[in-house]
Amino acid sequence: MELNTVEGLTEALLTGNRRALARIISHIENNTELARPLLATLYPRAGQAHIIGITGAPGTGKSTLVNVLAQVYRQRHLTVGIIAIDPTSPFSGGALLGDRVRMRDLSGDPGVFIRSMATRGSLGGLAQATADVIMVLDAAGFDRIIIETVGVGQSEVEIASAAYTTVVVEAPGFGDEVQAIKAGVLEIADIFAVNKADREGVDRTVMALKMMLSLGVPEKFQVMHHGRMLPVDFPAAERSTNAWTPPIIKTVATSGQGAADLVDAIEDHRLYLEQSGRRILRDQLRAATELRMILRDYLLEELLARIPQERLQHIINAVARRELDPYTAVQQLVHAAFASRNASSA
Amino acid sequence: MELNTVEGLTEALLTGNRRALARIISHIENNTELARPLLATLYPRAGQAHIIGITGAPGTGKSTLVNVLAQVYRQRHLTVGIIAIDPTSPFSGGALLGDRVRMRDLSGDPGVFIRSMATRGSLGGLAQATADVIMVLDAAGFDRIIIETVGVGQSEVEIASAAYTTVVVEAPGFGDEVQAIKAGVLEIADIFAVNKADREGVDRTVMALKMMLSLGVPEKFQVMHHGRMLPVDFPAAERSTNAWTPPIIKTVATSGQGAADLVDAIEDHRLYLEQSGRRILRDQLRAATELRMILRDYLLEELLARIPQERLQHIINAVARRELDPYTAVQQLVHAAFASRNASSA
Repeated sequence: MELNTVEGLTEALLTGNRRALARIISHIENNTELARPLLATLYPRAGQAHIIGITGAPGTGKSTLVNVLAQVYRQRHLTVGIIAIDPTSPFSGGALLGDRVRMRDLSGDPGVFIRSMATRGSLGGLAQATADVIMVLDAAGFDRIIIETVGVGQSEVEIASAAYTTVVVEAPGFGDEVQAIKAGVLEIADIFAVNKADREGVDRTVMALKMMLSLGVPEKFQVMHHGRMLPVDFPAAERSTNAWTPPIIKTVATSGQGAADLVDAIEDHRLYLEQSGRRILRDQLRAATELRMILRDYLLEELLARIPQERLQHIINAVARRELDPYTAVQQLVHAAFASRNASSA
Repeated sequence: MELNTVEGLTEALLTGNRRALARIISHIENNTELARPLLATLYPRAGQAHIIGITGAPGTGKSTLVNVLAQVYRQRHLTVGIIAIDPTSPFSGGALLGDRVRMRDLSGDPGVFIRSMATRGSLGGLAQATADVIMVLDAAGFDRIIIETVGVGQSEVEIASAAYTTVVVEAPGFGDEVQAIKAGVLEIADIFAVNKADREGVDRTVMALKMMLSLGVPEKFQVMHHGRMLPVDFPAAERSTNAWTPPIIKTVATSGQGAADLVDAIEDHRLYLEQSGRRILRDQLRAATELRMILRDYLLEELLARIPQERLQHIINAVARRELDPYTAVQQLVHAAFASRNASSA
């Protein structure tokens, strides 16, 4: 099979060829000229997988939990793709290390595919690359796709919005109630996992979460939609009925305890989304988010390509020396881009 | 004094009027019609403050550390503005709580100004709003501006790039070496603070950091520049001489132990940046980052304003149903924006 054309790679991917999968992901990560045609070809093939986001602070045991979740899914004869977002030093090679640790338990199983994606110091682009890789794994036929992210930054929320079901991992003794509130994860959590549940203080952590939940949970969709410029359909009739309250599941990832319960909760949530019509809403939200990200980068690239480097440098230096404020500078850049365009078309 | 005009507010701000400061920040946060003119007027007045970023995982005691740092600076007769970026529930009111806790030790001192900024579920815009508020505090004459962020997400790195000196806070027993590598903060750290240094395991944490540093530290500037589309001047002659190795300072924020050492390290770094010419580089980098953020949002807004809502909704739905891939959709949106523009100008 030809693994260097869009057709060859696509055909191979759809028949389960692992080398094709790895190559396609490389094309996307390196943004080669095959990347866009591959994405356009595969996009209609995706849409079947259930996408699960696992997030939480460092030290809560997320990676181990993802590992055992994958094992439970495999026992249930479902295939699993795992994407670990690693805010890792490009330089310490941490992403590689992460892969190696995981590989121990899951390697050799063709029903599991693991990929680490590192930020590599680049700001922006990761959320988009992640969405693209999710789509490829989805088209490749994986039943469940797990995305693991650290922390609660804006980009993590953006990545989490790619998931249908988001599991927030907490651990006892790791933060008191104020910390939990600070984490600001209430709105993105569909399920809470309190990991390391064999440790002291687990009941206090569960209690703190229950207290927060008792204050009422806003519809996840509404929060994620807030501040967006792209509209999504959300019939008023549905707005009042949020029948899902995030369950709190105790787990001990190192022993596998509670992992089956967590998988059950994820599957319950999957059914809830489908039966309540909310899966369609989330698809629209994901589409809107993705369009927004692609548009933003596309427009910036287009504009910058039209401005000579020296002019750009000149404006940046003027802003740095405070001779020009950035808002006026933006007007000048936009004007410069259109002026050079008119000149070249004249 | 008139506090409802650009001139009145600016004049009042420059004479130290606190009400003017609070109002200007409100104008920026709410993006009123005075926001842009205020920013343009104040921008040339800024550029004197030293901007310090404090970041680290939840539970490392960052907030308390920021508190004692401010106290040390006050003892040295310098004024301090504090911006706490709180990824807080819009709904639990955590940002408010944070302010109240801080206020206890610093309230009543006119040489300190504290502002919490919450993400409020909005994705994007926070980094820009933060840069704007930093600029206003700078123009208002604060000698040192401290920005406190949680976590190590992309947006936190973007916010950190607004700082001249970034302090990464670690705590013992909080993560082993793998965790430390995973945090991926080596590149953004100018100084490490190992807080809670009275706890067991502090030497292990210091040792792990030393080991990482012994592998060599890339020039911060190079890492932050990676992946950017905007150029900055960075003479080859300077590229080879990175004379700064991040010091590791042990602190116990609750007792104030080590706080003066940490302030000394920050001031050493400030002098290093000035004497090595790197402050100018960072000003250019900040200008480039800010222009990029403003441009990106400006272009997206401009485009979306030109597309009828129904058409946008139609395209989003088609992408959500996988009848259209997002890259082709972006082409259609760009085409639609230009088509409607031509139509209206004809």
